[in-house]
Amino acid sequence: MAEKSQSGAADAAKGKGRGVDASSVAQPRVPRTERGRRTQRAILDAAAAEFGERGFHDSSIVSITIRAGVALGSFYTYFESKEALFKALVQDMSGRVRDQVAPVLRGHSGSAIAAEGVALEAFLRFAREHKEIYRIIDEAEFVAPEDWRAHYLNTAARILERLQAARAKGELGVEPSEVHAWAIMGMNVFLGLRFGVMDGQADLGEVAREANALLKDGLG
Amino acid sequence: MAEKSQSGAADAAKGKGRGVDASSVAQPRVPRTERGRRTQRAILDAAAAEFGERGFHDSSIVSITIRAGVALGSFYTYFESKEALFKALVQDMSGRVRDQVAPVLRGHSGSAIAAEGVALEAFLRFAREHKEIYRIIDEAEFVAPEDWRAHYLNTAARILERLQAARAKGELGVEPSEVHAWAIMGMNVFLGLRFGVMDGQADLGEVAREANALLKDGLG
Repeated sequence: MAEKSQSGAADAAKGKGRGVDASSVAQPRVPRTERGRRTQRAILDAAAAEFGERGFHDSSIVSITIRAGVALGSFYTYFESKEALFKALVQDMSGRVRDQVAPVLRGHSGSAIAAEGVALEAFLRFAREHKEIYRIIDEAEFVAPEDWRAHYLNTAARILERLQAARAKGELGVEPSEVHAWAIMGMNVFLGLRFGVMDGQADLGEVAREANALLKDGLG
Repeated sequence: MAEKSQSGAADAAKGKGRGVDASSVAQPRVPRTERGRRTQRAILDAAAAEFGERGFHDSSIVSITIRAGVALGSFYTYFESKEALFKALVQDMSGRVRDQVAPVLRGHSGSAIAAEGVALEAFLRFAREHKEIYRIIDEAEFVAPEDWRAHYLNTAARILERLQAARAKGELGVEPSEVHAWAIMGMNVFLGLRFGVMDGQADLGEVAREANALLKDGLG
């Protein structure tokens, strides 16, 4: 995939292949006005719909700007190419998953393990309402591999931080590790796929409760 | 995606979109001789290497037959197209994951939960030795979605069967459900990605032990 960043420095810093440093990839221009922010948001939302329905290769910038109701020139004010837009969208979605879960965790007064359950339920509801997120994150493995990797590395790092904070408060029976963080993330991703995306009817509160009981007490 | 099956009946039975019935998709011709079986195996192995390195779209039948050391005509004896080969490869890999784990489980004399740990370790070792499997199964979401779905539905169904057998023997503290099966599968898939594929150095026995302790006793 040919990608050009808007900054020569970023270009120079950017490694090839499956790099993990999301800070070194081309970033979309940050709008300076409220109107600009709305335009950029409209383009990202239209891109989520277009890439989610058609996939990266069959999506077009023209079609995305039509969905967004913005002029083609406005598109190029914020994104330099379809690739750059896709990368920005993966980062945006990764951030939205984080932002969906963060307030739920902050507002939770129970144990740290129970908090993982409410975080899971919030994620399952987000996945059901934004089914396109799976297709887009999954396609990022092929279209924007460094952003795909960064999404999972960042998500696992946040889970591990929460587990370490819980351990420090004496709430965990084991010393948390990256194995636990990736295990929990994998659980959550696959439960979202099965019960949020494939199945529109499952009781997501019940799914989260069962998964959380597994996380707390195991199967033994 | 345009796919044609070799059998009109299979074509008629085949649904469009993300169907789950793997029995209704076009199947490669079954070789009648040992030599034919070797040729078909060589093509599948070459396809795993080619699709794993280049991805579906940049792979070619000619290049796969060269890797396999077989004539182009032999290719068309067994597979009707690149799409049909990719579908056959996903089914083959799904079966190999199953076959990798099955004998380990049969030979295990400990508890059912401990058996899940040895199954995980066998899978992690397989993932590290066959890193291409992740790229191929992941790309199947876009190239052969019904086979991708079938792979996960079948894998989860096998896990659930094992849990139900364990429950019947009084070895589980909870009634097993699809939530447990998908949670365990998600855990295993992500641990394979992180420690089998991304990281060539991690102690896979230790990863499996930590994950199995989580499965048995939870974090509480």
